[in-house]
Amino acid sequence: MTTDTRPKEAAARVLVGDTQVTIAGMCKGAGMIHPGMATMLALMLTDVSIAPTLLKTALNHVVERTFNMITVDGDMSTNDTILVLANGQARNRRLVDAESSEYQAFEDGLLAVATELAQGLVRDGEGATKFVTIHVSGAETWAAARQVAKTIATSNLVKTAIYGQDANWGRVICAAGYSGVDIEPDQLRLIMSGDVDALELVRAGAPFEIDEDRASAILAGDEVTFSLDLGMGQAEATVWTCDLSHRYVDINAHYRT
Amino acid sequence: MTTDTRPKEAAARVLVGDTQVTIAGMCKGAGMIHPGMATMLALMLTDVSIAPTLLKTALNHVVERTFNMITVDGDMSTNDTILVLANGQARNRRLVDAESSEYQAFEDGLLAVATELAQGLVRDGEGATKFVTIHVSGAETWAAARQVAKTIATSNLVKTAIYGQDANWGRVICAAGYSGVDIEPDQLRLIMSGDVDALELVRAGAPFEIDEDRASAILAGDEVTFSLDLGMGQAEATVWTCDLSHRYVDINAHYRT
Repeated sequence: MTTDTRPKEAAARVLVGDTQVTIAGMCKGAGMIHPGMATMLALMLTDVSIAPTLLKTALNHVVERTFNMITVDGDMSTNDTILVLANGQARNRRLVDAESSEYQAFEDGLLAVATELAQGLVRDGEGATKFVTIHVSGAETWAAARQVAKTIATSNLVKTAIYGQDANWGRVICAAGYSGVDIEPDQLRLIMSGDVDALELVRAGAPFEIDEDRASAILAGDEVTFSLDLGMGQAEATVWTCDLSHRYVDINAHYRT
Repeated sequence: MTTDTRPKEAAARVLVGDTQVTIAGMCKGAGMIHPGMATMLALMLTDVSIAPTLLKTALNHVVERTFNMITVDGDMSTNDTILVLANGQARNRRLVDAESSEYQAFEDGLLAVATELAQGLVRDGEGATKFVTIHVSGAETWAAARQVAKTIATSNLVKTAIYGQDANWGRVICAAGYSGVDIEPDQLRLIMSGDVDALELVRAGAPFEIDEDRASAILAGDEVTFSLDLGMGQAEATVWTCDLSHRYVDINAHYRT
């Protein structure tokens, strides 16, 4: 049984040196989606010519920033698989150097395909009504930024608030607070944005003249981004998630009936 | 605003030496309940005569095994408070020695009161339809047992399955698997029990002749216990939680309306 509702595919063409290389991918998964990967089967195919160890380097780099940065329900699956296959038919000069601009171009293309696939898993998340981006900046390290972002993204209170179209900045700040990362509350700045508008919710750790009408307009859309600046450093990380809806409970309470 | 639906109180009388000592407590909280404590205000009062440092020892011991072992939604609050006040009016010989049998009797009483209060928070958990006990045994350390139990208890998939009255042993085993504790799948034994019956779901890591009718009868009750034996050691831990229902989503999606 699968709860996927649509195919998830992506492709990119990149110039490696002066050779055009194609990267295509597909994946499945909708529930039991959480970093470490997910109940997810992802396959990426490319005609690039690349040394196997360097392809592994590229895959690790890309997965860490894409498939491992999504969460639907916080439940990690036992059955995650991602494969990348390269057959060399593009006949570019074989990639062997991770520092070369040719390798970088390929890695960028792989990253673009993997990002679209990973986001596709979240868009098709069980019961999801909104696609949610949690962007944390101003952290001392990337690991700290990721930890704060993931804690916010897995909070049931944050996810139900978004489902209820409630600009509940308190739940976002609270989740950051219990993330295990030392934060300075007075430094926090939180901005919520949608398709056409952006609204500052928290400045210097305090709620900032929230216009409830504009907040409601943003939260009525299909996509919402929360950008939290910790004000402590230069590192940032982005996690993609969805809201927690009645439909998620339906799907998972009656899985076998 | 509070989502508590009922008062939560408990009391115990214990013999400290030959003096009767009374311990009484009360607490509030229903959502945003997760270890590290919770959106929770708990107060325990006693007439025991005890050295302040020893009372703190008793409180720490007891909180670690009660209030820090419950979870409703995995969201830790910023506003947790627990207080214990002792006025010495019982006129027992003042407790000063953590190794004495008199201290142990008092600590047992405090544990009984705190257990009832902590369980009361979960029974009144937002949207809860069932009181769920996760008992993990056979771990190498208490910390490992607690980590496995807490991971199972915070899994949305486990909690929606219980709400849907589905004996989904796979989700329980899966959560144990991603808990971060090294486990030996072939050693796992899982038993589900209710008020009147108990059913072995997994033996030696494999599903075991599951009688769906008996499973349904157990899951139709208000209380269900999952006992997972890791088969690796002697340590055990118990966490109390509730199911994840449509009502939880209602309450937290429309908190301000």
